[in-house]
Amino acid sequence: MFKAVISVNFKKSILDPQGNAVLKALNSLGYQNVEDVRIGKHIEVMLDCENKDKAKEQLNEMCDKLLANPVIEDYQVEVVEVGR
Amino acid sequence: MFKAVISVNFKKSILDPQGNAVLKALNSLGYQNVEDVRIGKHIEVMLDCENKDKAKEQLNEMCDKLLANPVIEDYQVEVVEVGR
Repeated sequence: MFKAVISVNFKKSILDPQGNAVLKALNSLGYQNVEDVRIGKHIEVMLDCENKDKAKEQLNEMCDKLLANPVIEDYQVEVVEVGR
Repeated sequence: MFKAVISVNFKKSILDPQGNAVLKALNSLGYQNVEDVRIGKHIEVMLDCENKDKAKEQLNEMCDKLLANPVIEDYQVEVVEVGR
């Protein structure tokens, strides 16, 4: 059994309105030292697979097909083996 | 300058309908080996602060006040120092 942590974020060149709204909210709450906020998705996937390489390969496929939009988003996949 | 990566997720006891929808979608795309999906937020914050401890303290405050709902969500904060 493997646990994957995937983070999906807008590419640097893409505007992030949700992040900007949170930045303004933090500034107006008194956190003037906050300079940038970007908000993306944090996805945890539990999957059963023969080995870690195969798991990683499948997860990259899932990201390309469903979890991320490769046109505007980047993703990072981390896989760790866990017990049942 | 510090960069913080915050992940905000529903507590284990809270249902995650978005995660369930993605789980079903992955299963129907042929990934029958996927057993669980949980979806949360991935927040990156750049902030200026004297030291790492102070930054972490402020970030925990921000999570409690704005970034997470402590009633139904857990959060994790990781801070690294970065150049300007």
